[in-house]
Amino acid sequence: MSAYQDLIAYQRETEALAQVAGRLGWDQETVMPRGAAPQRAEEMGAIEAVLHARRTDARIGDWLAAVDEAALDDAGRANLRLIRRSYERNVKVPADLASEIARVTSRAQGIWAVAREDEDFAAFAPTLEKVVSLRRQEAQALAAGGDLYDALLDDYEPGATGAALEAMFAALRPRLVELRAGVLAAEAPPPLDHGFDEAGQLALSRELAAVFGYDFDHGRIDKAVHPFSSGSGLDVRITTRTSARDPFNCFYSTIHEVGHATYEQGVDRHHLLTPVGGGVSMGVHESQSRIYENQLGRSRAFTGFLYRRMRDVFGDFGVATEEDFYKLVNRVQPGYIRTEADEVHYNLHILMRFDLERAVISGDLKVADLPAAWNERFEADFGVAVDKPSNGVLQDVHWSVGLFGYFPTYTLGNVYAGCLHRALRAAVPDLDDQLARGDATAATGWLRENLQRYGGLREPRATVEKACGFAASEAPLLEYLEEKFAALYAV
Amino acid sequence: MSAYQDLIAYQRETEALAQVAGRLGWDQETVMPRGAAPQRAEEMGAIEAVLHARRTDARIGDWLAAVDEAALDDAGRANLRLIRRSYERNVKVPADLASEIARVTSRAQGIWAVAREDEDFAAFAPTLEKVVSLRRQEAQALAAGGDLYDALLDDYEPGATGAALEAMFAALRPRLVELRAGVLAAEAPPPLDHGFDEAGQLALSRELAAVFGYDFDHGRIDKAVHPFSSGSGLDVRITTRTSARDPFNCFYSTIHEVGHATYEQGVDRHHLLTPVGGGVSMGVHESQSRIYENQLGRSRAFTGFLYRRMRDVFGDFGVATEEDFYKLVNRVQPGYIRTEADEVHYNLHILMRFDLERAVISGDLKVADLPAAWNERFEADFGVAVDKPSNGVLQDVHWSVGLFGYFPTYTLGNVYAGCLHRALRAAVPDLDDQLARGDATAATGWLRENLQRYGGLREPRATVEKACGFAASEAPLLEYLEEKFAALYAV
Repeated sequence: MSAYQDLIAYQRETEALAQVAGRLGWDQETVMPRGAAPQRAEEMGAIEAVLHARRTDARIGDWLAAVDEAALDDAGRANLRLIRRSYERNVKVPADLASEIARVTSRAQGIWAVAREDEDFAAFAPTLEKVVSLRRQEAQALAAGGDLYDALLDDYEPGATGAALEAMFAALRPRLVELRAGVLAAEAPPPLDHGFDEAGQLALSRELAAVFGYDFDHGRIDKAVHPFSSGSGLDVRITTRTSARDPFNCFYSTIHEVGHATYEQGVDRHHLLTPVGGGVSMGVHESQSRIYENQLGRSRAFTGFLYRRMRDVFGDFGVATEEDFYKLVNRVQPGYIRTEADEVHYNLHILMRFDLERAVISGDLKVADLPAAWNERFEADFGVAVDKPSNGVLQDVHWSVGLFGYFPTYTLGNVYAGCLHRALRAAVPDLDDQLARGDATAATGWLRENLQRYGGLREPRATVEKACGFAASEAPLLEYLEEKFAALYAV
Repeated sequence: MSAYQDLIAYQRETEALAQVAGRLGWDQETVMPRGAAPQRAEEMGAIEAVLHARRTDARIGDWLAAVDEAALDDAGRANLRLIRRSYERNVKVPADLASEIARVTSRAQGIWAVAREDEDFAAFAPTLEKVVSLRRQEAQALAAGGDLYDALLDDYEPGATGAALEAMFAALRPRLVELRAGVLAAEAPPPLDHGFDEAGQLALSRELAAVFGYDFDHGRIDKAVHPFSSGSGLDVRITTRTSARDPFNCFYSTIHEVGHATYEQGVDRHHLLTPVGGGVSMGVHESQSRIYENQLGRSRAFTGFLYRRMRDVFGDFGVATEEDFYKLVNRVQPGYIRTEADEVHYNLHILMRFDLERAVISGDLKVADLPAAWNERFEADFGVAVDKPSNGVLQDVHWSVGLFGYFPTYTLGNVYAGCLHRALRAAVPDLDDQLARGDATAATGWLRENLQRYGGLREPRATVEKACGFAASEAPLLEYLEEKFAALYAV
């Protein structure tokens, strides 16, 4: 066997074990008996230890040094690049620091949850300071003199830099603030006021998943407190949730997760369990979930289909026309909470987190000053004062578990979704006719053919640009939002 | 840390990973998407490879040599004994042979399934010969000149020997053959003739599980093709199945698996994830499943309760009295299939498998001669000729996956159940009054207090004898069966 074959065989085993660890997480959120938690923590710790040992095994370095790169095809070179990047990152971080980060962040999540419950940032601050300090140490080990935030960002979005994102976000922010103000000045449609039974919601969400190309032979849908997608390759599971008075929560969570899941299901099968065989980055992943959920799922055409199906399943639910339904689905409302935000507000939430966490990692902003900075920025962009920490700086779990550099991938995903949507519309001129019939075959087929099937073959931005045929920028997203909400709210 | 602490910390991680591997098996049989199988095989192979490497890691030998045994308490000494036995077995088998056995048996199961479907023993014979040859090689490595069958048996039932079982089985066989003949000469009750809805069966089976002490906070019940119990400690799951015309299949499968599961759930919590923390052997495990299922679950007293609950759930199902119901539950019928056998026939099926597999492993019986030997023995004990291989030598999966030495633990479990039942009756004089009310608290409490909680603290036979307070023998089982079926069939 060549060094490459040895390396890939080893890597496949590691990836198989990572899939097992991921499925353990799925099990925990869906079917685990509640009393099993203490044992589960030991199981998870044991398999994570195995994975860490494998990912830092010196043999990887030996194989990497011995590979004859010229003899490899494109996929081989891409696998090599991904393995090398991951290995070099892993060995740069001292083992003691890696295990200290794991230990501290696993406790920090619980401390954050209690502090949020108690509306007490001060109770969380020492823990957050510790997390920030550890992640800064990690970034210093990784950056070798370069930018600390970029070193962290690189884990979620290889190739992205804080400076490039800052420029893109600077272009987004004023136009989003302006759009928001215009929309909120107009009259909003009344909210939904009806009860929807759970069985009907779950049945229709399964139908929607199938419409958007989810493959039930290689996945399943279960209920969980938080919707998520889990797994890669031949076993990609999603979860959803229901709310008696808000069926859109169920339907659009499902469509969102189907975007993530079909991406994983759609990578060419011969890459199975290799580094190329999964989604290439968090940002590109989010582009798939967002284009399914928003540009397609919340389009006028598709909401017409959904309206008729909801009438079939639930009867008259107090919305008279498809047009009213479209407005309802795209209702814009001020609010403190990122995860409940509409398309107009969502990226404003992300932009402020990006600026704040970048300042925290650079050292320009102290953890103790974070609540004040949060509240000031929120009032500037959203026009209202934060009323309590759970609606402000304590609302997201991310920082407690050490996820610095993760937030911007959400907006990057929306920007990429805007680009892909423009290219998709050009490639499928009658897309709306199809969506209006509940047929997303051409849309999902185009995404699979032009993006999903390549997995990690190219770098993230190149993956999107190859699919679009043009350079990615924030312009298509902005134009899409401005056009859509101008029409809806006569801005 | 002392050598013992290092060893136990290592062992806990290994056991945690074994739990993960076990749960992967549960997932495969209950919730896995059907298209995931090829990937799952890689995942399972990867985690089994990790487990094998850990179980043969030379550091275990170093720790074992360094432990100060005199400083340990009973549990510590028992853990040491169990780790030493497992390690010494594992390192005796050459790695090449172990992986060849894994490879061949994983393929053999599929070949067996096709041969059984095709009623074609000849198509399976070469594979079975290979499996036998490999297991004999393994036994030679383990036995170091001793008895080959004993070396295999020791994996499932430490301390048992073929010679001791042969003596016990020789005492069982004539009295079982005689009992069988007597019962079959009497008139059997008519079979059940009614339909039972699935939801009712599943709801009542959950109720029965709770009656017999199954802890749903540390377990769950799902449907699967074959009922099984899976996991140890804080997460012990069982499966069941339903049949529209045979609800007893569901109820008694559930009670059987609850016996296995409550044993695992019932081991003292401070042994969690240590070798002492699980059931001590296959035979003792089967004693728990069998006493729950038969001596308790099929007793006159408990079937009275079950009859009333079934009438509540399903209405009139064509059985007029509790007495008729008791006879129906304990209906004795000739049949070819072990897994469908009643209490009178079951052990006769095992006894013949024990003699046949022992002769195969010793080399006295060639694989090619196995069908003839099977058919001859079956006719001798059961009085009828085998009509086709799927009703004969091809009916069980065990030999295809290399399980030689496993079958006798079923009958050993029944023998132990007979002993435990005698002791339980003496300890709880009003047991029948309780069971008649659907109250198994005292029965399961006695089993937990006297047997289950000790896990692997003592050797298997000592575990049973400690609970009973007398030497284990086949006599209590025989007397129980003869008394019960004499009364039922006026033999």
